[in-house]
Amino acid sequence: MSDSPAQHTIKSYDQDLRRLRDMIVQMGGLVENGVARATEAVLLRDPEAAMTVVEQDPRVDELEREAEQFVIKLIALRQPLADDLRHIFSALKVTDDLERVGDYAANIAKRSMALNQTTMSSTNSGIANMARLVQEALRKVIDAFAEDDAEKAMEVWRDDEAIDNIYNAIFRELITYMMEDPRNITACAHLLFVAKNYERIGDHATNIAETVYYAVTGKAVGEARPKGDSTPYATLPSKAS
Amino acid sequence: MSDSPAQHTIKSYDQDLRRLRDMIVQMGGLVENGVARATEAVLLRDPEAAMTVVEQDPRVDELEREAEQFVIKLIALRQPLADDLRHIFSALKVTDDLERVGDYAANIAKRSMALNQTTMSSTNSGIANMARLVQEALRKVIDAFAEDDAEKAMEVWRDDEAIDNIYNAIFRELITYMMEDPRNITACAHLLFVAKNYERIGDHATNIAETVYYAVTGKAVGEARPKGDSTPYATLPSKAS
Repeated sequence: MSDSPAQHTIKSYDQDLRRLRDMIVQMGGLVENGVARATEAVLLRDPEAAMTVVEQDPRVDELEREAEQFVIKLIALRQPLADDLRHIFSALKVTDDLERVGDYAANIAKRSMALNQTTMSSTNSGIANMARLVQEALRKVIDAFAEDDAEKAMEVWRDDEAIDNIYNAIFRELITYMMEDPRNITACAHLLFVAKNYERIGDHATNIAETVYYAVTGKAVGEARPKGDSTPYATLPSKAS
Repeated sequence: MSDSPAQHTIKSYDQDLRRLRDMIVQMGGLVENGVARATEAVLLRDPEAAMTVVEQDPRVDELEREAEQFVIKLIALRQPLADDLRHIFSALKVTDDLERVGDYAANIAKRSMALNQTTMSSTNSGIANMARLVQEALRKVIDAFAEDDAEKAMEVWRDDEAIDNIYNAIFRELITYMMEDPRNITACAHLLFVAKNYERIGDHATNIAETVYYAVTGKAVGEARPKGDSTPYATLPSKAS
């Protein structure tokens, strides 16, 4: 039995939407891998892992452009209604967040190379913890997107507080290391940015969580979660003052 | 003489596009103002200016959401063709960049409050220079967007290198200050992030420049401009080593 023309159109439209989702999940996998390799680069002082991340980042950007072009074609050809547009725009937002996560991974990888030139050899264990939590959030939120799972998305959203708390502790710890020994200063300055990059990846995972929630339920996440980086307000008594 | 229905439709479609542009230019003005006040907050140690920026940021986010909702309605009602979609998507991309610039302005403002608690009273003159260049780039690229001026957009794109050079110099300077006197460490750590925030605002101005160029000409900016923050690779000999 063959489909009627109308059924055929709906079928290929669904196929288009599925293809868009697959593109984004693929991009998510690449970005996840980037963060994992960047973390190896920092924790194991592995310059080859760092190079891989930097070299792969243009591929992430390319996937984002492909998704955008696909969406433009999809809208022009299918003229979707408002409800479908919500899903399509959500998909675009997610690619944008993933692209930025890719940038942060590349930045962490680059910083790891600078760290290899410094005198401080032990890596802050806080950063290892933070990296683990951030990777977990990223993996989970990509799953939530792939599975249209609003509840799983909200878990990621709630877990971001723990990441922010670790970040704030690391900031203070690094400042203390710098004060204790000026030889640590260059390394710690880079580690400050490494930690900040993980914190930003956590924020983007939270953004994706909000987008998934909105796409699935049609409602915005009500409760406003305050931004977790409290270090802009952080001060420490200067030991030498 | 009254319009035919077809002319009427085209007219109100043009009006919609103009309204979208006006919304974004308004958002641009608010964001520009935010960066200007944040700069006052840092350079003049003005906590009231800082509070204004932090308080206004939700309004920027609100304008972004309004623009997004308007675009979804516009696409659903008008079913624009691929060429118009390019303009509409470009507008969305610009709002996204502006929203992020607003976030960076708020972050600079928050850091200025932390700086007010530290012992280091003189502000790095490099930051004043950098802030001036970044504000100029932002003003110019919003003009380029408002006027569909691809040439002006390309000027902003080319000028970003100067901003990146200043940023790299400031990074090294701040590390040196920290090494010279541990009492400077907390302040300089915040100033590192302030400088980084300006550098990111410069990057977003460059993104907007690329978007304007693409919207006007239909072509991507060919030449790839390398990312300008070379500090991920930066190392300084530890004075004390």
